Amino acid sequence: MAGRDGVKLLGYWASPFTLRVEWALKLKGVEYEYFEEDLPNKSPLLLQYNPVHKKIPVLVHYGKPLAESLVIIEYIDETWRQYPLLPQDPLEKAKARFWSKFADDKCVPAIFGTFTNVGEEKKKAANEARENLKTLESGLEGKRFFGGETIGFVDIAAAWLGCWARMVGEIVDVKLVDEETMPELCAWLENVLEAPIIKDCMPPRDRLLEHNKGFHKMLMAAAST
Amino acid sequence: MAGRDGVKLLGYWASPFTLRVEWALKLKGVEYEYFEEDLPNKSPLLLQYNPVHKKIPVLVHYGKPLAESLVIIEYIDETWRQYPLLPQDPLEKAKARFWSKFADDKCVPAIFGTFTNVGEEKKKAANEARENLKTLESGLEGKRFFGGETIGFVDIAAAWLGCWARMVGEIVDVKLVDEETMPELCAWLENVLEAPIIKDCMPPRDRLLEHNKGFHKMLMAAAST
Repeated sequence: MAGRDGVKLLGYWASPFTLRVEWALKLKGVEYEYFEEDLPNKSPLLLQYNPVHKKIPVLVHYGKPLAESLVIIEYIDETWRQYPLLPQDPLEKAKARFWSKFADDKCVPAIFGTFTNVGEEKKKAANEARENLKTLESGLEGKRFFGGETIGFVDIAAAWLGCWARMVGEIVDVKLVDEETMPELCAWLENVLEAPIIKDCMPPRDRLLEHNKGFHKMLMAAAST
Repeated sequence: MAGRDGVKLLGYWASPFTLRVEWALKLKGVEYEYFEEDLPNKSPLLLQYNPVHKKIPVLVHYGKPLAESLVIIEYIDETWRQYPLLPQDPLEKAKARFWSKFADDKCVPAIFGTFTNVGEEKKKAANEARENLKTLESGLEGKRFFGGETIGFVDIAAAWLGCWARMVGEIVDVKLVDEETMPELCAWLENVLEAPIIKDCMPPRDRLLEHNKGFHKMLMAAAST
């Protein structure tokens, strides 16, 4: 049973890549059946549907699987036309793809590096993360959301990242998202996270923090053996 | 003067990322004015048009700049509708985006790792490159080109990669593209590189080989100091 729209989503509750796909489906009002993956024991369904990466999220639409969260979101946007996520204008569309790629290629590794490293390496990664988040801010060009007045492609691609950067900062005691140096990015983040559909779909903060603290402990233990 | 179509391209002759954009423009028959960048001394135009990455290629269309080669190619495909590069069907389009991303995220770093490392690290990167190229081959699904009967998005995104993998193999004496283990990928590569528009736009092989040999020598000298 994959609901009225024939959609299944294989995901993991604490995965930001799953979350962004859920946000896209919810904003569109697409019904889907959600399958929680046990990541240390991946389901045969996941291995069958994403043999290349063996990673979540995977969207299955009437039996046809798709992987890679941004690719999935573009598919969702092209298949269900209500509430468009990408702008229609090719130049604006290119800008949205550019900033989403920038978030994934430049911000994610730097934030993750702050989380997984210690000492000088951690400091270096934190500086890089701050610098890249500041650059991401420039993509707002003074607008409320990346796409203008409503939440769109870049907002759902990048908002979890601001959220995660804050949590990482809290766990490893480093400020990555700074109200003083990046006020526009902070205001944007609040605007996205306060939007009802987005807010309703967020995992509980305490549970997420506990989960990430546990993950960090495990990483540090592995690094010191 | 940016030609009939108002297009300028800032590139570098030996850059495969520039090459794939040129292939897209040529396949579409879009006129453009080409500006060769001197990479150690980037032009003020490049710094102005791509302040985020400061990298080529940059496409400028009636004064509006775009960066990131795959983003540029999608823009070209949406702006000039003749000779479509991406399929129309959302699922097939998603597959094309998936494989282009796979080529960039998985094949490029492994091939580059084979080029820049020595000893065990080089061996490890070469194994990874072969494995990833074999996975890329599976995306062909028995077709002549990734998109079917004509050269499309994935073909222009990935063909230089096969070409470059061969050249890297020659320079560092490791076989990455193997006729025996990946016959379909090899046949595909020949089909793409033999297509007149693609062939006419390739830099001369001897000059490219010499350039990459020089680059490799420089990398090895830097690594041993």
